[in-house]
This record gives sequence, C-alpha cells and structure tokens, in this order.
Amino acid sequence: MAKELDFLTKRSEDYSRWYNELVVKADLAEQSDVRGCMVIKPYGYAIWEKMQRLLDDRFKETGVQNAYFPLLIPKSFLSREAEHVEGFAKECAIVTHYRLKTNGTGDGVVVDPAAKLEEELIIRPTSETIIWNTFKNWIHSYRDLPLVVNQWCNVMRWEMRTRLFLRTSEFLWQEGHTAHATREEAEARTRQMIGVYADFAEKVMAVPVIQGVKSETERFAGALDTYTIEAMMQDGKALQSGTSHFLGQNFGKAFDVQFLNKENQAEYAWATSWGVSTRLMGALIMTHSDDNGLVLPPRLAPIQVVIIPIGGKPEQVAAVDAAVAPIMDELKQMGISVKYDNADNRRPGFKFADYELKGVPVRLVLGARDLENGTVEVMRRDTLEKETRQLEGIAEYVRQLLDDIQQNIYQKAKAYRDARIYECDNYEDFKARVKDGGFFLCHWDGTAETEAKIKEDTQATIRCVPFGFEQTPGVDMVSGKPSVARVLIARSY
Amino acid sequence: MAKELDFLTKRSEDYSRWYNELVVKADLAEQSDVRGCMVIKPYGYAIWEKMQRLLDDRFKETGVQNAYFPLLIPKSFLSREAEHVEGFAKECAIVTHYRLKTNGTGDGVVVDPAAKLEEELIIRPTSETIIWNTFKNWIHSYRDLPLVVNQWCNVMRWEMRTRLFLRTSEFLWQEGHTAHATREEAEARTRQMIGVYADFAEKVMAVPVIQGVKSETERFAGALDTYTIEAMMQDGKALQSGTSHFLGQNFGKAFDVQFLNKENQAEYAWATSWGVSTRLMGALIMTHSDDNGLVLPPRLAPIQVVIIPIGGKPEQVAAVDAAVAPIMDELKQMGISVKYDNADNRRPGFKFADYELKGVPVRLVLGARDLENGTVEVMRRDTLEKETRQLEGIAEYVRQLLDDIQQNIYQKAKAYRDARIYECDNYEDFKARVKDGGFFLCHWDGTAETEAKIKEDTQATIRCVPFGFEQTPGVDMVSGKPSVARVLIARSY
Repeated sequence: MAKELDFLTKRSEDYSRWYNELVVKADLAEQSDVRGCMVIKPYGYAIWEKMQRLLDDRFKETGVQNAYFPLLIPKSFLSREAEHVEGFAKECAIVTHYRLKTNGTGDGVVVDPAAKLEEELIIRPTSETIIWNTFKNWIHSYRDLPLVVNQWCNVMRWEMRTRLFLRTSEFLWQEGHTAHATREEAEARTRQMIGVYADFAEKVMAVPVIQGVKSETERFAGALDTYTIEAMMQDGKALQSGTSHFLGQNFGKAFDVQFLNKENQAEYAWATSWGVSTRLMGALIMTHSDDNGLVLPPRLAPIQVVIIPIGGKPEQVAAVDAAVAPIMDELKQMGISVKYDNADNRRPGFKFADYELKGVPVRLVLGARDLENGTVEVMRRDTLEKETRQLEGIAEYVRQLLDDIQQNIYQKAKAYRDARIYECDNYEDFKARVKDGGFFLCHWDGTAETEAKIKEDTQATIRCVPFGFEQTPGVDMVSGKPSVARVLIARSY
Repeated sequence: MAKELDFLTKRSEDYSRWYNELVVKADLAEQSDVRGCMVIKPYGYAIWEKMQRLLDDRFKETGVQNAYFPLLIPKSFLSREAEHVEGFAKECAIVTHYRLKTNGTGDGVVVDPAAKLEEELIIRPTSETIIWNTFKNWIHSYRDLPLVVNQWCNVMRWEMRTRLFLRTSEFLWQEGHTAHATREEAEARTRQMIGVYADFAEKVMAVPVIQGVKSETERFAGALDTYTIEAMMQDGKALQSGTSHFLGQNFGKAFDVQFLNKENQAEYAWATSWGVSTRLMGALIMTHSDDNGLVLPPRLAPIQVVIIPIGGKPEQVAAVDAAVAPIMDELKQMGISVKYDNADNRRPGFKFADYELKGVPVRLVLGARDLENGTVEVMRRDTLEKETRQLEGIAEYVRQLLDDIQQNIYQKAKAYRDARIYECDNYEDFKARVKDGGFFLCHWDGTAETEAKIKEDTQATIRCVPFGFEQTPGVDMVSGKPSVARVLIARSY
C-alpha cells in the first residue's frame, strides 16, 4: 500500500513538512481564512473530544468542578498583576466597538464610530484575572476554601507565525484555577495536577513525558513556580505538553481576595492554575505517526477497528456481510468502536491506504476464501504486521491486540526518547550535538545569564529541572561555576 | 423548612424577581463585571454539562459529527448574505487591534495604534458565514454530501438589556450546520432536528413544547423556514427554546459552494442550521421550580439523592454512617448520583432548606430511631411529600421514585400549559386576556401588517404556526380577512 501514499513527505526528508501535510491529509485540521485561526475538522475533533472526556474524568476524581467565565476581559484587569500583564497583555485581540452600520454605498458594513467602548475588552489569553475578580465574591471564610474550578474554552494569543495545533492564535484548552487557605495546600495541588497530566499523557496518549520545574525565565507570567511535562518528538525536539503553576498570593493580592482563617484573621488566598490545550494533538501526532500516516493509541482512536470485505461478486460480499455482523456486535459490546466499510465506490487498496493514513489501530480483511477457511487477516497499524487468524474468538483477540498496541507504542516512544537523553558536561560538545535533537542533562549555575547565552548560541532552552533523576553537584558547562543539579536542555516547539 | 427560605421572593409576588433571585441563590450563575456576560457557576454548569452530554448523544445517533470553527469572522463575510447581515451584523463585538503597549505613565496598558487590523474581525454571533466559507473547500462532488457538522461553543451578540441565561451578550450553545445535495434532504434534516430538540425537551428536561414554523417576520435572518419549539413558563409567557432553519441555497450561493451532481452538473448546495443554547437553563428553571427553590428533573440533577443523618451523639452518627454506606454503594451501582452530607458544621434544618433550594430530587433522612426501626424518611422534592419507608429495598424504591418524579413534573407542566392554551376569535377579548399570559390560538390572515399591529397593541407575537393541531379555515380576528390556519400567539421572553 505504501506506493499509494507517496504523496506524504517522508519524515527523514523533511519532518516539519511531513507534519504539516499529515495534519491536513488525515483530515485533522486546516488553516481558516482568519489569520492564525484553525478549523478543527471532524476527525481531528473526535480525537480531541476523547482527550477531553478522559481528562475531565480524571479531573473530577480529584474534586474539580467545571464552570464558565466570560470570554472578554476588561483591559484594566490585565494590569493588576505586574508580571502577568508583561507576559500576556501585549499580543492579544482587542474589542473596541460594539456595533456595525451599513456604509454609504449600501453594499457592506462599517464600524459605527458612535459605538466605541469606554474601556476596551481583551479576548482572554488566559483567565486568571477575570476568575480571581470573580473569586473575590465567592471567598469570605476558610470554609469557602478550597475552590477547585476548571473551564474548557477557547483562548486567543495573537501569534505571528502559526502551525496547526502547535501554535495558533485561537486554540482550545482547559484552564484550572484553584484557591486555597494555605501555601502548602496550593503547592500540593500544583504538583497533583502536573501528575494528572503526566499520567494522562503516558497512559492515554502513550506519550512518555519528563516532569520538572521551569527556570525563573521560563515561568508563567505571575507564577512563583511552573511545573511542566516535556515530551520528545521524533526529531528530538521537546514539546511542552502541559503546565501547572503555583501562583502564591499574587492574584489574591492583585484582586484583594481575602478570607477569614480559623483564628478569624484576614489572609490572602493562595492560587494555582494549570492547563493543557489542543497542542496535545501535535504531541500525539509527532510522537507516534510514521511515513504512512497517523498512528493513534487505541484509547484515543475514533475508530479502533475497521473491517474491510474483499472479493467482487455480490453474493460473496453478502456472505461477508453476514459473517461480519456478529463480530461487530461482539466488539461493540466490549466497548470497542468498529466500522465496517463495504462501500463499493472505493477499491480495497484505496481503503487500506486511507485507514492507515487515519491511524486506525486494527484492520480486519475478509474475503470469500477466508470464509471458506474460517479465517481473517489482521493488520496492526503500529507495526504494519499482518497475520491470518481464526475467525473463532477474533473479537477477544482484537481486544487484547488493542491493549498490546497501546502498550507497544508507549514502549517504542519511550525507548526512542531514552536513547536520546544525554548527560553532557562540555559546552563545545553540547553545541555540536544539540542541533541534531535530543534531551541534554547538563549542569547549570542557576543564572539567567548562562541560560540566555545557551539560547543565543544554540536556540536550545532549559526545559526544566527534571524530577526523578538522581542529582549530584557539579560544574556549569558554560560558566564553570558550581552547580547543584543538572537541568534538561533541548530545542523545542 | 419553608420559614428558612423566606429570603426567596414568592412567584406570586414577582415572578421576574423570583427568577433572578433563584438563579443566583441556587448557585447557578451570576453577572460578571463584564457588561452583559455571565459567570456560570459550578452547580449551574453541572446541569448544562448533563444537557450537553445527553443532547450530543442524540445528535450523534443521527450522524452528526462535531468540529470547531474560528471564533472571529472577517467583517466582509457578514455582508455576503444580504438578509443575514441585516439580522446579525449590527450589535456585535468588533476586534480592531491586536496589540497593547505600556502607556507613558507606566501603570497600565493602552491600545497600540500601530496594531490596527486591515479588516476588522467580528466575534461570531452565529457561524453560518465562516462555516460556509470553509465548506467551499470540503464540497466538490455529490459524494462529499451530506455534511452534518456541529460545534459546541460560545457566541456573542451585544445586548443592551440582559437577564441571566435568558439573554446575555455572551452565551454557550451548539450550532449545527449541514449541507445537502437536494432540497428535500435539507428540509427533512431541518424537521428532524426540531424533532430531536422537542424530544430532548420533553423526555430529558421534562418541559412540554409546541413545535411549529415561524412567520416570515420571525424567521432567522437568511432562512427560508424556521422551525421552533415553544415552551410555556409559569407566568404564561412563551420561551423559544430551540430553532432549526432551512436555509435553501442562500449560503451556497453567497459562498459559491457548488458540487457536481450525478449527472456531472454543477449545483449549489442546500443548507440547514439549528441550535439550542444556555437559554435552555432558563426554560428548565422557570418551568418546574417553586417558592422553595429549584425543582430539577432527575435526569439533569447533578445530585439525584442526598442522604442526611440526624441525631447529635457521635456514636449515633457513626451508626448512621455505617448503615448508609451499603445504600450509597447500591445507588451508585444503579448509576444514581448520591451525596451523603454528614458535615457537622451545618444543622440538618439548614441542609434541608439548602438541598430544596438546589432542587435535589430525593432526600433521605436517617436518625438513631430510624435505625432501631429499620426505617428511613423519604422526601420527594417535586411535591415535598414525606413518607417513612423500610430501609430494606430502599435503593430500588428510590430508583423508581426518580422515574416517577421525572414523569410527574412533565405531566404537571403539561397540565399547567394545556389549561392555558385558548382558542380566541375576538380581538378585544384577546387584548384583554393576553397580558395575563397563556398561548392563544387565533386565525391570522398571513400579513406582516396584522402581525405588527398585534405586537404593537399587546407586545404579543406570533410564536409559530403550530404542528399537531387540527386546522380549519376561518377569519382573522384583527383584519376580518380569510385565514387558512390558527397561529400560536403569546407574550414571550
């Protein structure tokens, strides 16, 4: 089938182009005629919906409640938290008027200058400000805490250079916002949520991630600490896939959110925020997919199994239809989404290529001879391996195979990544190698100057101080100064 | 318990105020500091989430696929369809700039005049234009049709006078958009979706609705036909709860969406669109609730059963805790959401009133004496009736009771409405009675002049030409001209 797919650029030729083509050709998303805004097509949205549902279930297990806050934020709100405004107020969509009127020539509409807003409104780039302005009314006593709220919504950050899913002006995400009576509780929630993201990435998306904490330079604007999960794409670059922020009392103070503690004293509430976005779609695609198209983890595949009949004569097709019906029923009863594609306006070879492109994890093919033999051809998308199996017991076999694929693509991605994590103590060596991708564990003296120099020399950045690695003191590879720990450095999306 | 709730205005005193208070006091929603935009609070959002989930399941059963289209629409798109721009382009939020900069004094941000957009962007009031501009790239042949797409999203229409859920500048909704090869298929889909809405309203929300078709005056801007479901609130006013539009080829032509039919001839695609919004929350609240607070249909209640222990001594509470655990398990296994509220910082009486206010359908109360007797007190929210039941088999009893409540509140609402539907043939009589609410079935001559006069005289409007009523010709009550059918007239939200 590979020949029919040579319209997809090979990863080895141009990884970036392969990605762009794949997103469009697999019907995941496309650019709209509105600068920087994408259309998420039904097939892509079906994957996002599964992510949402499974992530939302995990949130709710930890006590999260969903809510909805306004799209528009008064300009003055952004200025309340000094660092936050620096980070977010610059490139954003600004609403200045609220009415159009027909123009003089009668063939269009123009902005009505009389309908100018007194204060401009900003389309939310993130919602800390409007939410903490609301929390002020909800929080009076320690009994009102903790507040653990989340919203699924669209946000907007004006981007000059966009790429589908990875960087778009408008994107979909969830943003969790919590308020706590103590610093300890807020810090624990911050860590808890990065743990939820890591678990989701690994168990559901089959994407191995490294958890860690950001350097001061790379922190969220207004945070005291930003935790991150970093995934490695097939080109060795890092993709920041989720973040969780400990915001201290910054927003509590900026929006005057005080509560009476058990001793009846007023204190400012402690805050966290945490989010993942449609960027996860990019991580999913770039971690697993291959030159034939998408490879999807079974837990997120909109269609987990496709069944395709072969053999031209109508009575043969009818016999296959009859044989497939009970298999479909059995699979559906197991909670497996299955599609039977017996459309006669596309040849089997075309269907094979198309479902490979779309990343359907398991394909079953049945013809007249299979029926005679009581067999079926099974193809698994992750390895493209085919085998002939007995029809008897095929549903149970497929169920296990889906589990196996889920595990296998995770292990494959992990092995790929682990082979590209390097300890490096020599800056010349680092500079020579980092452009080829990979995660570099290097000693860092903790200064923003060294961080800036690395970025300027190599475009690589400190992704995080990683957790789960045994750390010993050493010497910064750039400055030669003492270092307490290695950090993870990589070029990134 | 009623005494503890006398902070809620009675419906008979001021229905409108009762509604406004209830929405806020039951923690459903509140006004934000952004003009006309609401905050949907966790309890309100939990109800909306249930609506979304159940409606989305019904959509998917009819072949609907979800997708996502841009929030912002280029101004020129709105002008493409002449009637559409008249209806939607006037009161809307307009993005004119994409950057802020720090102002001279350093304590705030101002709009950067250098970052003016060449063409202004409108926050979607509805998405026909951007979606048909996208469909143009998706539709080439009859094989690409039908396209049956939906999005769940936020929209914005600048409103001068807003009321929580009923009329807000920003609201949440779903908008379905379909493209078809034939007029017949598009008309059938338009009717199919109003049927889905009606079924959802009646079976899930327990809100009886009248289906019908709008007069030309009341049609969606750009539609050839608008179907509606109209519900009656407790003050006798109508609330339009969902609409489905047959758009003909208007958008196909405006955005040049042509396909090659089976005879290889180019034709314009046929369109429908259909939507329901957070306005349904208003319909839900105003149909069922009473002077004690919310009454929720069990199928939408975030908490279906609350269990409250009474009796002060710690060992008594511990005994109740132990007795309640297996009941909780049994109810959860039945898929029933149950909350055990043994918090000791609120008195039982306060809890009773609070869960009544929140509309929890069933309340179980257990004390030491109940345990001795093997009994439990059961209260149903819809009638406020209490009874003592044996603990043995209580879960099964509660399951049936929830079904019974679901049926009962529907029947109650239907009886209330049916008693307020009047045939009326005399305009003086009509004018005298319509201000007290109710649906009036009257003969209409079909002219916009008569329609305008009725509205001017009485504020009542033609809600629809209703389906499911036997129609006979007659005489228009205003003009005396011949009429082919009765229409439904009412004052409305």
